[in-house]
Amino acid sequence: MTNYYAPIEDMSFVVQELGDLEGVSRLPGFAEATTDILQAILEQSAELTSEVVAPTNRIGDLKGTYIDNKQVMIPDEFKVIYKHYLEGGWSGLSEHREFGGQGLPQIIGVTVEEMWQSGNLAFTLCPFLSKGAGRVIAMHADQKMKNTYLPKLVAGEWTATMDLTEPQAGSDLAAITTKAVPEDEHYLITGQKIFITWGDHNLTDNILHLVLARLPDAPPGVKGISLFLVPKFLLDENGGLGQRNDFYPVSVEHKLGIHGSPTCVMSYGDNGGAVGYLVGEPHHGLSYMFTLMNHARLTVGLQGVALSERAYQQALAYARERIQGSIPGIDGRVTIIKHADVRRMLMLIKAYTEGMRAMAYTATTSLDYSLSCPDPATRDYHHARLDLLTPVVKTWCSEMVRETTSLAVQIHGGMGFIEETGVAQYFRDCRISSIYEGTTGIQARDFIGRKLIRDDFRSINLLLEEMHSLKMELATAGGEFTIIHSTFDKCLAALANSLAFVRINHTKDYAFAGTVAVDLLMQTGTVTGTWLMAKSALAARRRLDSNQGNRRFNEAKMITARFFCEHISPLTFAYELKILAGHETVSAMSEDQF
Amino acid sequence: MTNYYAPIEDMSFVVQELGDLEGVSRLPGFAEATTDILQAILEQSAELTSEVVAPTNRIGDLKGTYIDNKQVMIPDEFKVIYKHYLEGGWSGLSEHREFGGQGLPQIIGVTVEEMWQSGNLAFTLCPFLSKGAGRVIAMHADQKMKNTYLPKLVAGEWTATMDLTEPQAGSDLAAITTKAVPEDEHYLITGQKIFITWGDHNLTDNILHLVLARLPDAPPGVKGISLFLVPKFLLDENGGLGQRNDFYPVSVEHKLGIHGSPTCVMSYGDNGGAVGYLVGEPHHGLSYMFTLMNHARLTVGLQGVALSERAYQQALAYARERIQGSIPGIDGRVTIIKHADVRRMLMLIKAYTEGMRAMAYTATTSLDYSLSCPDPATRDYHHARLDLLTPVVKTWCSEMVRETTSLAVQIHGGMGFIEETGVAQYFRDCRISSIYEGTTGIQARDFIGRKLIRDDFRSINLLLEEMHSLKMELATAGGEFTIIHSTFDKCLAALANSLAFVRINHTKDYAFAGTVAVDLLMQTGTVTGTWLMAKSALAARRRLDSNQGNRRFNEAKMITARFFCEHISPLTFAYELKILAGHETVSAMSEDQF
Repeated sequence: MTNYYAPIEDMSFVVQELGDLEGVSRLPGFAEATTDILQAILEQSAELTSEVVAPTNRIGDLKGTYIDNKQVMIPDEFKVIYKHYLEGGWSGLSEHREFGGQGLPQIIGVTVEEMWQSGNLAFTLCPFLSKGAGRVIAMHADQKMKNTYLPKLVAGEWTATMDLTEPQAGSDLAAITTKAVPEDEHYLITGQKIFITWGDHNLTDNILHLVLARLPDAPPGVKGISLFLVPKFLLDENGGLGQRNDFYPVSVEHKLGIHGSPTCVMSYGDNGGAVGYLVGEPHHGLSYMFTLMNHARLTVGLQGVALSERAYQQALAYARERIQGSIPGIDGRVTIIKHADVRRMLMLIKAYTEGMRAMAYTATTSLDYSLSCPDPATRDYHHARLDLLTPVVKTWCSEMVRETTSLAVQIHGGMGFIEETGVAQYFRDCRISSIYEGTTGIQARDFIGRKLIRDDFRSINLLLEEMHSLKMELATAGGEFTIIHSTFDKCLAALANSLAFVRINHTKDYAFAGTVAVDLLMQTGTVTGTWLMAKSALAARRRLDSNQGNRRFNEAKMITARFFCEHISPLTFAYELKILAGHETVSAMSEDQF
Repeated sequence: MTNYYAPIEDMSFVVQELGDLEGVSRLPGFAEATTDILQAILEQSAELTSEVVAPTNRIGDLKGTYIDNKQVMIPDEFKVIYKHYLEGGWSGLSEHREFGGQGLPQIIGVTVEEMWQSGNLAFTLCPFLSKGAGRVIAMHADQKMKNTYLPKLVAGEWTATMDLTEPQAGSDLAAITTKAVPEDEHYLITGQKIFITWGDHNLTDNILHLVLARLPDAPPGVKGISLFLVPKFLLDENGGLGQRNDFYPVSVEHKLGIHGSPTCVMSYGDNGGAVGYLVGEPHHGLSYMFTLMNHARLTVGLQGVALSERAYQQALAYARERIQGSIPGIDGRVTIIKHADVRRMLMLIKAYTEGMRAMAYTATTSLDYSLSCPDPATRDYHHARLDLLTPVVKTWCSEMVRETTSLAVQIHGGMGFIEETGVAQYFRDCRISSIYEGTTGIQARDFIGRKLIRDDFRSINLLLEEMHSLKMELATAGGEFTIIHSTFDKCLAALANSLAFVRINHTKDYAFAGTVAVDLLMQTGTVTGTWLMAKSALAARRRLDSNQGNRRFNEAKMITARFFCEHISPLTFAYELKILAGHETVSAMSEDQF
């Protein structure tokens, strides 16, 4: 028995109704992406993640990782699930066929990614980072490097990780000082990297590190950073494992959560220099790394969905079992799901989780179009839409998962605070998601600076047009949509008002954009969630009218969408007031007045 | 060096300007409660809690507690700070002189309580619970029991704890099944109690347990619960320690936070029955226990202030040291406190913390008046005000401290997720505060049921009148109060609107009150916070005009109050919309649709 079973009914609904599976399946190469294939994958993946992956989650939390003889040791249970991951072909589901993948669209792959992250987030970081690193190599390395490293990486025989952060260079990567000095046909890397997720382990024989470092002639700042591939073991002439490279994990961090994921301090070149190979051109490292980062940010958003879903299921199971108190009309004591306040909390988690899923999957569809659509205009449209939505998905999901996992703890009462119950782990694990792959502050700066101002508000206006046309649909959809329509209408007005205010004021004082950015991003997230839940409600109504799918599910979706409008959308107006307040009081105090 | 120093400037300000120290000092017996005495106590307590108490906080988190030979063992460091606590007379600061206390008002004692909870929350639970238990004994036990147990308890030679919860009886204490059977002049107690805070330890020789249990002839439900004093060691004829009583700690829980506080499963009467003594009358146990519970709820609210303050100080110190990124107008890289988004987060923590403190101290003043005011009308007024404010303080502070400690983690970036940094501990520790001493759901039911509906909205209307008169003051206070006045005006209207809606609708469907209760309580908290910060701003203006106190402090208070109105008060309107949505969607789904 496990306390997780993938919500395949909702996943299937969202992939089809919001994720535009039908449209995606018409893109070149995606003819296999039918609803039948989707259903088969959902069921098979659900069984595996429920029965095999999910039970390892708490084991990883308890066992953690440690260093033995200069190598990080991970729980043995992780080796078992990794075997399943590879043998089931889950690794290559949405990878290109040329690298041994199955070539399905991301909108199908995302469901499996959500399940694995629900099952065991700490473990899943390893193969997901490897996949991201593989993309970087595939896009930016020369053919020889690709031939040498990609097959093993795609097959999962080796893993990969990215090494960006240094003690003095976190959000500010311009401050990187790790050095790369040319020698023969490679480079010698020296320096220290921190917060390296799965930086070392005993899961696979070799680990490829993508390391940001500076060449001797590098200009200062972000334009002087190059990217190097630095393998744990150098390859011998036959491509087999050769010499151990000159870098080691110095320590693994004791963290608030994701204990099963080794977060390493890595030391490079203590004995002369670690051998690294330049990826692509010199000084372009940071932009290459963003190939990985942008996708990783979507994945972190998806972690919010995954942990919310798992916390929801555990809280729901408890609410259905736990007997406490009584209510009028029922003799004796009742299960707590009958108490209005517990129902309210369950509805909140459910509505947030479905809103997050709708958002993350919608962005994923744009990823498919941006990668595979032959029509340049459509491709560009989705590219810009993806760029815009990436910080929204990353931030809204990673911020709100703290609320949903906290509610799940709350539903358990005192038991929620006891680690054996397991729900506290989600509350701890999720706390990293608004920090790594760019903090909320960094996402907000990207959003307001690059995605709005530098874009002259073009992409956001296109998104608002999409939203407006849904509003028109809602207006004609009848009485049961009155609340959803009027809420969404007000939300759109509030967002438009906030955007107009930002457009006028951002040039007046440097501190303005920095002050309002997070609230604007969270407001955009809330309105986007409202939009997609409204869209879901309309789809559910159509399904009900045409007797498609499960009647109870479609009715629940309509109720949940209205609940979202009543209980979550109102935050839009609080964000608006915060934005309209501007930066004055935030800038007003001298540093010693804090 | 420690990372905590008590904010004595703000404490002194709040005690005087909101806590009405002058008025309290005119109550009988409080003539010593002068500002000079306050200042002396603040400084002395600040030094002790900073230098001696605060450094033990992380030690307790790391060491935790364990059972050895049927006894709970605590960190040795806790014994040292307990000695300071007793020898410094901190235990009896606000206790009655007849029990060896110093008889100062609670409004002075509360500052010391805040400091100790900032210093080491997990430890402080022990003496604070003992104090509460002492009050129960003082108010409800007969003279013989008082003479036998109170002196040792007040002197801190022994501690006390309360034993309410059982596996099947958490929020629902009606379900208690622990039995008490009369034998000679005592009772034999059998049963299991869980979640017993400091239920056992090696800090003192004896521990007094206040145990809720049922007599054989007890009616069912809450009216059949009696209270027993059950000492760990029975007393011999000379009042010395005699036979070990028949109850033991079975285990200590592994918890998300407050690791230094042993949370025990206690087993009573495995060898025939634990000897207990009836406190007061049979079947009145629960109401006696509420003597302690109501005060304890204020203390839990104060924990929110305490952990927010400590998290704020740590985040502030980091923001002043950590160099990252750059801003226009300054050459080179800057400390992160210069970034607008970091300032915004610091302002949020600061404003929440000061709002919480204002609220907790204001309620404490009503406690002083309700206990000591000779005028019956004033006494009753403050008694009702205290009853009304208790769930507000408990809930608003315990819910918002999750936000403030989370922001403090966020300001640290990746370092915040590393346990060694220490800030994650506050985030973990605070998670219990909205659960113990009555969950947020229970507080909300108490608030809407007993404090509003059963009171026919009298007390809340009196509070609204107080708020309205401040609004009038703001209206005439000049241009710098425009934003505070208009925000507070709108907040009051929103609260009045919500209350009117509840008054009309609560009789129509049982689920209505349960659905809206938490949002109404949180809305009341937000408006109360706005009121008290507005009041603080007016007081700071008066102080500025009369050159009283630190100019920088008073200016900062005015800025912080306005920031509160801009960034926290807007939640009032989101709560209003949630309340006006009523219970329909919360009640709509069948249990299997979740």
